[in-house]
Amino acid sequence: KRDPKLSMSRGYCQSMEERTECLRRKIKYYFMNPCEKYHARGRIPWKLMLQIIKIAIVTMQLVLFGLSNQMVVTFKEENLLTFKHLFLKDYVDGSMEAYAVYRQADVYDHIDYIITQYGLLHNNTVGNHEYEKNGSSYNPLLLCQNFYRNGSIYPGSETFEIDAHVDTECLKIYPANPVPLRDMPENFELHFKRLLLVKVTFAVMAINLQTVRYRELPDCYDFTVIITFNNQAHSGRMKVDLEMDVEINECKDWKVTGIYLTVMFDCVILITCITSFVLCTRSVVKGVLLMFVSKIHFSQ
Amino acid sequence: KRDPKLSMSRGYCQSMEERTECLRRKIKYYFMNPCEKYHARGRIPWKLMLQIIKIAIVTMQLVLFGLSNQMVVTFKEENLLTFKHLFLKDYVDGSMEAYAVYRQADVYDHIDYIITQYGLLHNNTVGNHEYEKNGSSYNPLLLCQNFYRNGSIYPGSETFEIDAHVDTECLKIYPANPVPLRDMPENFELHFKRLLLVKVTFAVMAINLQTVRYRELPDCYDFTVIITFNNQAHSGRMKVDLEMDVEINECKDWKVTGIYLTVMFDCVILITCITSFVLCTRSVVKGVLLMFVSKIHFSQ
Amino acid sequence: KRDPKLSMSRGYCQSMEERTECLRRKIKYYFMNPCEKYHARGRIPWKLMLQIIKIAIVTMQLVLFGLSNQMVVTFKEENLLTFKHLFLKDYVDGSMEAYAVYRQADVYDHIDYIITQYGLLHNNTVGNHEYEKNGSSYNPLLLCQNFYRNGSIYPGSETFEIDAHVDTECLKIYPANPVPLRDMPENFELHFKRLLLVKVTFAVMAINLQTVRYRELPDCYDFTVIITFNNQAHSGRMKVDLEMDVEINECKDWKVTGIYLTVMFDCVILITCITSFVLCTRSVVKGVLLMFVSKIHFSQ
Amino acid sequence: KRDPKLSMSRGYCQSMEERTECLRRKIKYYFMNPCEKYHARGRIPWKLMLQIIKIAIVTMQLVLFGLSNQMVVTFKEENLLTFKHLFLKDYVDGSMEAYAVYRQADVYDHIDYIITQYGLLHNNTVGNHEYEKNGSSYNPLLLCQNFYRNGSIYPGSETFEIDAHVDTECLKIYPANPVPLRDMPENFELHFKRLLLVKVTFAVMAINLQTVRYRELPDCYDFTVIITFNNQAHSGRMKVDLEMDVEINECKDWKVTGIYLTVMFDCVILITCITSFVLCTRSVVKGVLLMFVSKIHFSQ
Repeated sequence: KRDPKLSMSRGYCQSMEERTECLRRKIKYYFMNPCEKYHARGRIPWKLMLQIIKIAIVTMQLVLFGLSNQMVVTFKEENLLTFKHLFLKDYVDGSMEAYAVYRQADVYDHIDYIITQYGLLHNNTVGNHEYEKNGSSYNPLLLCQNFYRNGSIYPGSETFEIDAHVDTECLKIYPANPVPLRDMPENFELHFKRLLLVKVTFAVMAINLQTVRYRELPDCYDFTVIITFNNQAHSGRMKVDLEMDVEINECKDWKVTGIYLTVMFDCVILITCITSFVLCTRSVVKGVLLMFVSKIHFSQ
Repeated sequence: KRDPKLSMSRGYCQSMEERTECLRRKIKYYFMNPCEKYHARGRIPWKLMLQIIKIAIVTMQLVLFGLSNQMVVTFKEENLLTFKHLFLKDYVDGSMEAYAVYRQADVYDHIDYIITQYGLLHNNTVGNHEYEKNGSSYNPLLLCQNFYRNGSIYPGSETFEIDAHVDTECLKIYPANPVPLRDMPENFELHFKRLLLVKVTFAVMAINLQTVRYRELPDCYDFTVIITFNNQAHSGRMKVDLEMDVEINECKDWKVTGIYLTVMFDCVILITCITSFVLCTRSVVKGVLLMFVSKIHFSQ
Repeated sequence: KRDPKLSMSRGYCQSMEERTECLRRKIKYYFMNPCEKYHARGRIPWKLMLQIIKIAIVTMQLVLFGLSNQMVVTFKEENLLTFKHLFLKDYVDGSMEAYAVYRQADVYDHIDYIITQYGLLHNNTVGNHEYEKNGSSYNPLLLCQNFYRNGSIYPGSETFEIDAHVDTECLKIYPANPVPLRDMPENFELHFKRLLLVKVTFAVMAINLQTVRYRELPDCYDFTVIITFNNQAHSGRMKVDLEMDVEINECKDWKVTGIYLTVMFDCVILITCITSFVLCTRSVVKGVLLMFVSKIHFSQ
Repeated sequence: KRDPKLSMSRGYCQSMEERTECLRRKIKYYFMNPCEKYHARGRIPWKLMLQIIKIAIVTMQLVLFGLSNQMVVTFKEENLLTFKHLFLKDYVDGSMEAYAVYRQADVYDHIDYIITQYGLLHNNTVGNHEYEKNGSSYNPLLLCQNFYRNGSIYPGSETFEIDAHVDTECLKIYPANPVPLRDMPENFELHFKRLLLVKVTFAVMAINLQTVRYRELPDCYDFTVIITFNNQAHSGRMKVDLEMDVEINECKDWKVTGIYLTVMFDCVILITCITSFVLCTRSVVKGVLLMFVSKIHFSQ
């Protein structure tokens, strides 16, 4: 009995009955699952293995993608923390709620600290922060104050005269020569009685290199840091806040080497997917052919 | 058909029937809502629009009024915080519960700190605080101590002799020449064993300028700051407290310019309200006239 | 009709009927409440008022007694806080849980700090603390260390030899000449590898003067302060603890003056209570007499 | 009546009846509880007392065993705390979550601090810590940095070139001559832009002497301390972590004396248990004999 079966399976089907039997076997075999195929003909289930491998590596790819997305969030958060630690004098983690200044000298000290630290940023930072560039020169830090245009305020005699129109005065400070506010050649005095806001704005660029190791191209970040000294209440308490705007761009020019493993992993995924595609196509073609053949055969 | 209607609506009602019809139309038109009026005669509903605008701007005025009231509360709270930061040595936000002194030298240091800071207030504060004025000269800071009139206390030999009568001794210190307590020409020694209370009282004036921008006249504030060193327990722990009394007055003399927008907004409200009032009055008058006319007409 | 009544009430009861009537009235009057007495004879209810006053002032006395008891508790608690602030180096409120030393030099510094502060206590404290006296001289501070009698411990080569018997070595330091531990003429070295405990014990006396103002005699307090450096684990962390034993004694010799109000209040209570007692007794006596008289009268 | 009983109880049972009675009494006595035995013959219940003592001291032994086990846990925890306090600059209890560095100079300072403190450990620690020995010389501290092999990163112009291959560079520092990182003869520069990790690893040995007092032999501990400066995010924030691996070994060579009490306690337990065992055996033997005797007697 083994011989005919073997001959049939090898395709030697010549008599009508043999061909019918042969076709039936082919169709039966076609609809077998890999396990049955292994039991029937001892064929190792390569295709099943391939599918399992494909599922595994595609899942891995998905996880890596998720991780690299999470990195964007933590990168932003950690940069905010870094800016607070670098630019706010005597800042301690968790003290933002009560972070305020109460003395005129302290306001000058805090602003000078920001200016100095901005000048030193390049040599200070542990990350890869740099000043924004405008052509070949670095962009300056912008220091602005809002104040009532005019005003003579005498709380002691309960009299005042005020022009409520709000004026703005700005000053640009280049990181190359950071001068303390009180030693500036230009006159930039803070008139505390009329002062409403002091705003320090500057841009810092950074690259999130970390993603390189997670199979993604690093992004270029453009942080706009805004430090506000709020004196609108004139209550003697100037609340200091540090906010940050982020713009994420693709980097202009880049070159990454040494990620053999990553590239290899990508290649493996590619090969697996193509093989899987080819095998699926072949199976579909085979099925269609078998359909036509059986239609013709059984309609005879 | 249009002509008679037109003539009627234009008031050319001369025959009896015409006049009846005319009156009926007038009454009907009087009780129409703006929408029906628009459909009937194509009249754009100016009055309705005016009412809607009035509601909007009056609501806005109410909100601004609420905001300016809230400002009074935050102004007081922030001033309290400011006084604690300016006058209490080594004060850190949230440490009031445990704020106490345990050494004789510390008591002198704390009091001297208050005296020095009171003298510097003018040049230190970020707000618009000033000393209270009495005529042309500034009011002094008042330093008082309460103590048992007499007493020899020897805990070592478990004996004591005390005159429980409480005496009060006061000292005036002018902001112009603040002298540390231990360098004073007058004798103002603290007898810790008999000491019950040290009380430092001074007045600070301020103007809440902030309200200018919210369409209200700034108020003049008269803060009375009371700092108490409590030694009633003689347990070696002097609890230090800072309290504040507030008196809010209308300022005596003032002049505000540069609030064009605010004034304009006020004018708009005024005009809107007057227009609305005039229109309402006209409508009422019209109605009353119509009532009389119809009474006379239909009683004929 | 008024006359006979008046005569009866005045005691002019001579005929049998008159006397019966008289007695009946007396008995009726005896059982009247103050309100009825007022309506009957217009007598102002002095006795009722006296009772109400008595209740009020006795309640007041009770409240004062409660307050003065509470003072004992807060006096103890505040003294504990004071000792922590005076004798523990770099102590900050609420840090007791994590208060420990990790370096050999720090152990010496902490002990020297205690010794120095003990010497200065008299001039430092804001309360009325004093050293315990033994005859004419002050009691010393006692510094003791417990350690293993002998031991060569070589963790590097994982070998050790130890005599687990615990020895104790003590040193007396008089407040008059506090010498830092490392400058002592006697040898008092800390052998950290064998060290188990360092214990500093000293006694501080105080008087709770505060109670004077709440109508009670001040108590004399004898605090025994025990500061322990615990090295039993040899883990590199020496936990530091400050404990306090309190003994409350009556002071040996005392004289209090100037508490006129207090004494007056006590007198008022005394007088009120005595008056109340006399009136009650009179009432009881009257009642008993009335009982006898009526018995004799009605049995005739 | 007392005489026969006495004779019986003394064993003078000679006649048949006497012997029956005698046996019955013996059996009855055998099954009596200690209380009844005392009432019957006035015998003090030694055995019962022995059992109670046995229960008490065995329980005590169990408690001591539990305590010494707990000591292992606290010893590890306290050592971790100690290492954080000794090797992390400006470490404060509970600040681990926010413990990070933000400046290049701070990174060098923190590493130098670790190197210095490692060199001083022997003279600094309050516990019995020592360097690990390799033969006769002490093991060095291992300082490693991971970084991208190559890289030019210009965030300012949004361009970068990176070789993502990670290189590792290590440096051994012997405790005998700890040199600050920036004064090293070898070049060990931190390239912050390419830096991924700085890892400081060293081994510290210790002996948990404490268990000596709780009747157990001290264990030798081998701590591997790993301090990590994590710069993988390049966000300007380097998180610093201190981890610790523990290996607990039996010490190689040891000698303990002076634990007389402990040894005595162990002897008491031994004696008690042996006595208890002997008495139980005797009771069982007695019972079996009695069984045989009564079987023979009553079967006659």
